[in-house]
Amino acid sequence: MADAPKANAVVGQSGGPTGVINASLAGVIEEVSKHPEIQNLYGSMHAVEGIVKEDFIDLKDISIAVMEGMASCPSAALGSSRDKPDKEYCTKILDVFKKRNIRYFYYIGGNDSADTAHIVNVMAAESGYELRAFHIPKTIDNDLLVTDHCPGYGTAAKFVACAVMGDDLDNRALPGVKIDVIMGRHAGFLAGATTLGKQRDDDGPHLIYFPEKGVSMENFVGDIEAVYKKLGRCVVAVSEGMTDTDGTPWVKKIAKTKETDAHGNIQLSGSGALADFLTAQVKSHLKIKRVRSDTFGYLQRSFVGFQSQIDVDEARRCGRKAVKLSLTEQSGSVAIKRTGEGEDYTSELFCTELRNVAEKSKSMPEEFINKDSNGVTNAFLKYAMPLTGGLPKTYFLGHQKRL
Amino acid sequence: MADAPKANAVVGQSGGPTGVINASLAGVIEEVSKHPEIQNLYGSMHAVEGIVKEDFIDLKDISIAVMEGMASCPSAALGSSRDKPDKEYCTKILDVFKKRNIRYFYYIGGNDSADTAHIVNVMAAESGYELRAFHIPKTIDNDLLVTDHCPGYGTAAKFVACAVMGDDLDNRALPGVKIDVIMGRHAGFLAGATTLGKQRDDDGPHLIYFPEKGVSMENFVGDIEAVYKKLGRCVVAVSEGMTDTDGTPWVKKIAKTKETDAHGNIQLSGSGALADFLTAQVKSHLKIKRVRSDTFGYLQRSFVGFQSQIDVDEARRCGRKAVKLSLTEQSGSVAIKRTGEGEDYTSELFCTELRNVAEKSKSMPEEFINKDSNGVTNAFLKYAMPLTGGLPKTYFLGHQKRL
Repeated sequence: MADAPKANAVVGQSGGPTGVINASLAGVIEEVSKHPEIQNLYGSMHAVEGIVKEDFIDLKDISIAVMEGMASCPSAALGSSRDKPDKEYCTKILDVFKKRNIRYFYYIGGNDSADTAHIVNVMAAESGYELRAFHIPKTIDNDLLVTDHCPGYGTAAKFVACAVMGDDLDNRALPGVKIDVIMGRHAGFLAGATTLGKQRDDDGPHLIYFPEKGVSMENFVGDIEAVYKKLGRCVVAVSEGMTDTDGTPWVKKIAKTKETDAHGNIQLSGSGALADFLTAQVKSHLKIKRVRSDTFGYLQRSFVGFQSQIDVDEARRCGRKAVKLSLTEQSGSVAIKRTGEGEDYTSELFCTELRNVAEKSKSMPEEFINKDSNGVTNAFLKYAMPLTGGLPKTYFLGHQKRL
Repeated sequence: MADAPKANAVVGQSGGPTGVINASLAGVIEEVSKHPEIQNLYGSMHAVEGIVKEDFIDLKDISIAVMEGMASCPSAALGSSRDKPDKEYCTKILDVFKKRNIRYFYYIGGNDSADTAHIVNVMAAESGYELRAFHIPKTIDNDLLVTDHCPGYGTAAKFVACAVMGDDLDNRALPGVKIDVIMGRHAGFLAGATTLGKQRDDDGPHLIYFPEKGVSMENFVGDIEAVYKKLGRCVVAVSEGMTDTDGTPWVKKIAKTKETDAHGNIQLSGSGALADFLTAQVKSHLKIKRVRSDTFGYLQRSFVGFQSQIDVDEARRCGRKAVKLSLTEQSGSVAIKRTGEGEDYTSELFCTELRNVAEKSKSMPEEFINKDSNGVTNAFLKYAMPLTGGLPKTYFLGHQKRL
């Protein structure tokens, strides 16, 4: 490997924001400042859009106070983009890199972002331009390959756990059926995390449905009926990507049905549609009066003032690691390896090839989902719990002795 | 006034749970324990339902650890009820009071709960039974009369402020139109609180709509268009009770339209309906691609691990105050008077008559809503900000200098 080139660096944030993507950015900024080989650090506004438009901010110019404040603040401080660059787009990116002598490229995002870094990296090599391209992982869905888990997941897991802990207490106070729709189009890791706050045998969520395991409406309603008969109430968490037994997401099914309706002004692919559909199904089949639903929506990835400290620390380390790697390696994606469990949770970072992460995605492993496909296993709890950094206790007095 | 009777006491929690209704319960428990006149302290499970069923727990038996844990935990630790007792129901309540020698009645809830306490109190007086009946206020809607504000509001205000701060950062990262539906059927105090985290001139929410001020769909869409043209994005907060210019809630209007639809299995009075309707309106009129909505739902009143400390402290003081008052007064509702502003915020508690609070409700004062009826005034910010106990700072780098 050649010596680290004396050149400029660029960093961008792509895809859906998370609670800790700014901590990764802070990690990049602080590590870059230690290495004189890296001259300017360009912050690209709105990911690849900012690169091709040359809309760059000077990240060596921001104050420590802003960097540290940003690190504890959700969303993407550089802005994001949903652009998925093709070859022509990537050629433009490379042209800007050449023009600005940018030879370090740090890209924080999901599998699409790893793919972009990979494509630009290959094109640079083909044209004989020395570039070091590194992907820094983030997703709240936790669906990237190779890494044990993704920065962003722990904070989102803590959020949905605390939300459903409170929702379960609310459901104890005013019993009925409550359905919560959780982010996760293809992977059920976040829906599974709603169980992490369970403290009593009869705590909810009592049922969970995953994109990985199809469920018929008959079984969905039947499961709820069984819990309701036993406890007089039922809290259900479903992934937004929850599927029918044929593998089709329910969201798609109800949108299709709706297309035949000529009014056309009720949006069904929107956030409330799945929750409202499921509520109506339960109401009409079970004749239970109090059936409510919530769709947690963007709060899961952008709520202010509520991070998992372990997640923040790992996200920041991932940013630093990418910069360190770029001084000795040509390209790669930062990944996390778990080296300690439970209260002794620890992790190490390592480098994997960009193509191992690019475009692919991971589902919940079989051993994390129970045999009825409507809940999680202890193996899942052991996996996910440490990533939240710990959860508060909850209190309900219904179990106290009677006077 | 006669001496405080040597007798038992009962406490209940009624209506929708809040983030601090358990702190008020803790206040009742700790104050009762100081007064030997009050013998048993019955905790009624599920409010008035527990009284008539005699489902009581022994609140002098719970540990300090449970009491303190409970005080920092949302929802109603004794359970709640939506029952609105009529005269017959109240007769049953009074019969149980007589049977159990209960002469102290503490009822934590909204205006319906004040009314129940009032009815039972009048009936007791008529039958010559010595009873001391006190209402302890709670609502997240903040719509009770007499009191400056309601315990529960500050914590919910902090929640929606932090949610919209994050949502606004998310909208900066991926620009478009975002609509957030906030609790509040008749009063816009909580929708107004979404502005409390604004730190930069162009921070959202850029528009707010209240139940108190009707808005036509034409003006709603027009307001959004104007902001979108100026900023390239727009964050909107609407009360769930947002009304048309004729005063009819939009939720009712869209439900009515829907009744003519023969399918009947899509619930429109549910949580997602208003948000999805507004999204569809903006999409179809403005041809903006990225229009999203969230309905914050029950998270606003039951999210675990996220209270306003000022709200917790006041809620607890209200519980204690009710008990203290009951030793010297016959009945009343605890109310809050503001005695210091801003960072020097302080408050005192006083007693008002039950009938002053019973059944009635308060709207946002005119001076809290701007002249265009789509935002709040500085007077509102001054009123609401201290109740959150302070909010985190947010960070976005788009204002930094370009390289």
